[in-house]
Amino acid sequence: MFDTNEFLTRIKGVQTRMAAQGLSALLLTQEADIRYLTGYLTRFWESPTRPWFLVLPASGLPIAVIPSIGAELMSRSVVEDIRTWSAPDYSDDGISLLRDTLREVAGKGRIGTPHGIESHLRMPLGDWIRLIKDVEIGSDMQVMRAARMVKTPLEVEAIREACQIAGRAFARVPEKARAGTPLSSVFRSFQMLCLEEGADWVPYLSGGKGSDGYDDVISPASDDPLQAGEIVMLDTGVIRNGYFSDFDRNYSVGAPSDAAARAYDKLMEATRAGEALLKPGSTAADIFHAMDTVCTGGAGGQSAGRLGHGLGLQLTEGLSFIADDHTVLEAGMVITLEPGVSVSGGTGLMVHEDDYVITDTGCERLSPAPADQMLRLDT
Amino acid sequence: MFDTNEFLTRIKGVQTRMAAQGLSALLLTQEADIRYLTGYLTRFWESPTRPWFLVLPASGLPIAVIPSIGAELMSRSVVEDIRTWSAPDYSDDGISLLRDTLREVAGKGRIGTPHGIESHLRMPLGDWIRLIKDVEIGSDMQVMRAARMVKTPLEVEAIREACQIAGRAFARVPEKARAGTPLSSVFRSFQMLCLEEGADWVPYLSGGKGSDGYDDVISPASDDPLQAGEIVMLDTGVIRNGYFSDFDRNYSVGAPSDAAARAYDKLMEATRAGEALLKPGSTAADIFHAMDTVCTGGAGGQSAGRLGHGLGLQLTEGLSFIADDHTVLEAGMVITLEPGVSVSGGTGLMVHEDDYVITDTGCERLSPAPADQMLRLDT
Repeated sequence: MFDTNEFLTRIKGVQTRMAAQGLSALLLTQEADIRYLTGYLTRFWESPTRPWFLVLPASGLPIAVIPSIGAELMSRSVVEDIRTWSAPDYSDDGISLLRDTLREVAGKGRIGTPHGIESHLRMPLGDWIRLIKDVEIGSDMQVMRAARMVKTPLEVEAIREACQIAGRAFARVPEKARAGTPLSSVFRSFQMLCLEEGADWVPYLSGGKGSDGYDDVISPASDDPLQAGEIVMLDTGVIRNGYFSDFDRNYSVGAPSDAAARAYDKLMEATRAGEALLKPGSTAADIFHAMDTVCTGGAGGQSAGRLGHGLGLQLTEGLSFIADDHTVLEAGMVITLEPGVSVSGGTGLMVHEDDYVITDTGCERLSPAPADQMLRLDT
Repeated sequence: MFDTNEFLTRIKGVQTRMAAQGLSALLLTQEADIRYLTGYLTRFWESPTRPWFLVLPASGLPIAVIPSIGAELMSRSVVEDIRTWSAPDYSDDGISLLRDTLREVAGKGRIGTPHGIESHLRMPLGDWIRLIKDVEIGSDMQVMRAARMVKTPLEVEAIREACQIAGRAFARVPEKARAGTPLSSVFRSFQMLCLEEGADWVPYLSGGKGSDGYDDVISPASDDPLQAGEIVMLDTGVIRNGYFSDFDRNYSVGAPSDAAARAYDKLMEATRAGEALLKPGSTAADIFHAMDTVCTGGAGGQSAGRLGHGLGLQLTEGLSFIADDHTVLEAGMVITLEPGVSVSGGTGLMVHEDDYVITDTGCERLSPAPADQMLRLDT
């Protein structure tokens, strides 16, 4: 769905930001950054064995320095200059090839690589130490983070499609889950629903259940059966054409307790408070405070640490809705609102999440509208 | 399925290796290393936002230095000392807490972190640079790689279960794929089969199709329909209880061409040549040469770069079957044999993969026996 022009636009956008920071070359090692500039899409990143390098000059196309096993797939991308070695190579796993390429591209100019939050250096640390003995490499000054934060129209459409797929799967959960169904079966069935509804794969699913909310939101599923009166939450990130959705839904098994129902109302209220400020000019902190006022009365945070984040090539990327994030929202940013509340009278918590794109005048929800009241599963 | 004793055994094993290397503390940042020592199992690693740190002293239990969102789940593990901060924190994302913990644990002793192949530093590079201004951290001297390479009996059983699940799914592919089925539908259906057969999730699926083999083995699926006479290959890594399978199967749509049938025979022959040497005392290089002789006549390699690898908490880990890997096989190692051959008279290639555990006297296949001839799909 992404043509050559799309990648040329992205490359140019990053290069404009590089120029502003005085960078002569970027070194990229992570899946999302490399895919952003080239469209190189493969699940082979699941294997940590081989490093993959993309070098972006100040102008012109990026250069791929990659294991030969990836040459065929990379040759279908916008990249023309593909330099390969046979990996794994214990004596030199692409490092001298990369060093020479960086020297050739940057000359005496500055080279940057992502240094900040949401980024890692995806290569062995020993190889990195060896590389920087020969070539000086500093921070990319958040060039990649900033470029990726504002989506192109095609990216927004890809995320919208992923959200619609997850939304259809969420709507069908009552077909597969009722009192007595083990939570692990719900997780398994839900992933199958996501695939049936068009997901390419399902990289992320977590959730929880409990009588008044749940203990945490990142656990894998136990085999415990759903019980009448419990709340069950599923939070998924599905992939379609390389882009993520990331939102959740809460269900009550039969009628919810009053406390859980009130907590859900509060989540809806917090979501609306966030939505009201989702527009160009608001800061991430503004959104945080608006939601936190509803969630905690303005206590300034909770164990999850944030109330939403950016979304795109990664399940989470870019900005965070925390008090310290002063990013100014722009049209084209795609984000999630993810309020959490504790359920009164208990130790449980509940969370809700939806996905949005910022428009010129406000925002548009990319995930289907959540129900005013929790969806019910049969007892 | 893993109890406290299992983790105490693993911890002790790593600490014995640390002592041999003169290490007073290990810093671990990656999912597989942290899970190996604690059982901390969550799909939340899909979000790159938050770093997770585990510090292993020379004796005693590991200390977790983690975002507060993970405290509840970590508290169910063997770890007793859990130090948290509210992440993301743009001014200090756990770094001062980690620094103090490392100083406390290591004193004036040496600290190591994984430096070598198959490992990455999973934290922002900028935070790493900040950390090592205050605390000297060197290589872990491959302590984690070596410890994880020899599996415990419970680990072998977990991998066997994952392999059986994938095997049942492979056997059912003819139910879902035939001439006319788009390859993307085959991929989607196959993932659903894996889940139906008991996979917790399906982190890896790649494959290819073509009339005489396929172009490459790491591409995502196109929407092209299967055609009579084509070969289709699916290579999957499914997760069960946190452990991976990793093997593939080839299918012919109707009768295969003679060239493809001969290539498949050669793959079986290469596999048997590898199996014959899979026993304690053989080196990884021995296995490579035995298989490479069949695959290429002893040319010394091909684009994939290796003919199999270790397997366990990661899709790929530990040793590689290449000429330069002189690891001596030991009972308890779990590996894959993955020969590849070019199909005569064309540009296509074919690969085959099976999973094995090294036993005291030889090896045992963990994946179901491959068919003597390619499985057929209906035309």
